[in-house]
Amino acid sequence: MDSPPSASDLPERVVRKRTGGRGARIRSQVLAAVGELLVEDGYDRLTVDAVAARADVHRTTVYRRWRDVGGLLADLLDSASDDSWGPPDTGSLEGDLTALNQEVFDALAGDPTLTTALIAASFRSEDAARALSGFWDDRYARSAPVVTRAVARGEAPAATDPRAVLVTATAPLYHELLLLRATADPALPRRAARAATTAARAGAFACPAPADG
Amino acid sequence: MDSPPSASDLPERVVRKRTGGRGARIRSQVLAAVGELLVEDGYDRLTVDAVAARADVHRTTVYRRWRDVGGLLADLLDSASDDSWGPPDTGSLEGDLTALNQEVFDALAGDPTLTTALIAASFRSEDAARALSGFWDDRYARSAPVVTRAVARGEAPAATDPRAVLVTATAPLYHELLLLRATADPALPRRAARAATTAARAGAFACPAPADG
Repeated sequence: MDSPPSASDLPERVVRKRTGGRGARIRSQVLAAVGELLVEDGYDRLTVDAVAARADVHRTTVYRRWRDVGGLLADLLDSASDDSWGPPDTGSLEGDLTALNQEVFDALAGDPTLTTALIAASFRSEDAARALSGFWDDRYARSAPVVTRAVARGEAPAATDPRAVLVTATAPLYHELLLLRATADPALPRRAARAATTAARAGAFACPAPADG
Repeated sequence: MDSPPSASDLPERVVRKRTGGRGARIRSQVLAAVGELLVEDGYDRLTVDAVAARADVHRTTVYRRWRDVGGLLADLLDSASDDSWGPPDTGSLEGDLTALNQEVFDALAGDPTLTTALIAASFRSEDAARALSGFWDDRYARSAPVVTRAVARGEAPAATDPRAVLVTATAPLYHELLLLRATADPALPRRAARAATTAARAGAFACPAPADG
């Protein structure tokens, strides 16, 4: 995958990293196997034994290092947090939010993706739920410069809350594609980005709300 | 429950309706049992036999009428669509969206609620997924007057898309509380409503976008 990793469909790239050392190589093989099996068969059929077999790694190694399926899912998401992902920088708030939204859209709009499989797993496993919200917290924190740069350019008031802007921009995509299971509308990434930008410009995310004029 | 049913935590009220006839009474008992068991034990432990036992209804009756767990979940959601729910009418777009958001917030922010249990089930059962998105489509359609009244009052341009406004207002609540598992911030319903209102006023949901000036 040469394109930048998506804001959410993350581990796909990271698990391909082959950093030095036997431990790192094993981790990479095991996490790649977790992702593949999750997409192919879903959480219900994900077992440590199946992962060990797919990764071609001794099952005792997997049990010792990851303990159980929850540990594997948590590490898959952790591995995505230590990658080099950064937010787009297009020169405008609407452009940046549209690019972010396009990554989310691509991660959610395809056939069963790793992202949807992980979200489904998060409703079954507390470990997966914790790891997934940790991952998103990390991504929203890394994306904060999109908003602080917009403030510096005068596109939004100084007290604008970056996370509120980012969540407002991305949330309609998760809601439409994941929960409402609506047909994927290719205009949605830009429309949701534009709405969040418009609200940010008008000070809707500034706290306390700026005085008029 | 004397308060109006929530925008999403819906079946709780409906299954309490005791409309005439033995068939209606049985349906009411069975759907109440489905909701209770789903909240108590989750989808994994929901079986037709457990539902029949809890409802005190012959299991063959349940199998004949609902076939399986998917059929039970679908009917639970269908029953919520034929209730008398209507959107709030506070006199302003921000007021209406805040009231709608407060219903969603209450449905999602508590201990495991029927809403969260149903959403979790929708990741396991195609029938539940279809029924849940049908339910939401119905609720968003019924809520459209919130936006058309705002247009009539001059609060938003004529071509404003009701669903886009409604999804923009509610989506951050589902995203924060359900997916990101953030601490429930009581200011969120109003903040998300205000952002959607601000964007609607500025024409962000008008299609095609109005010319400037």
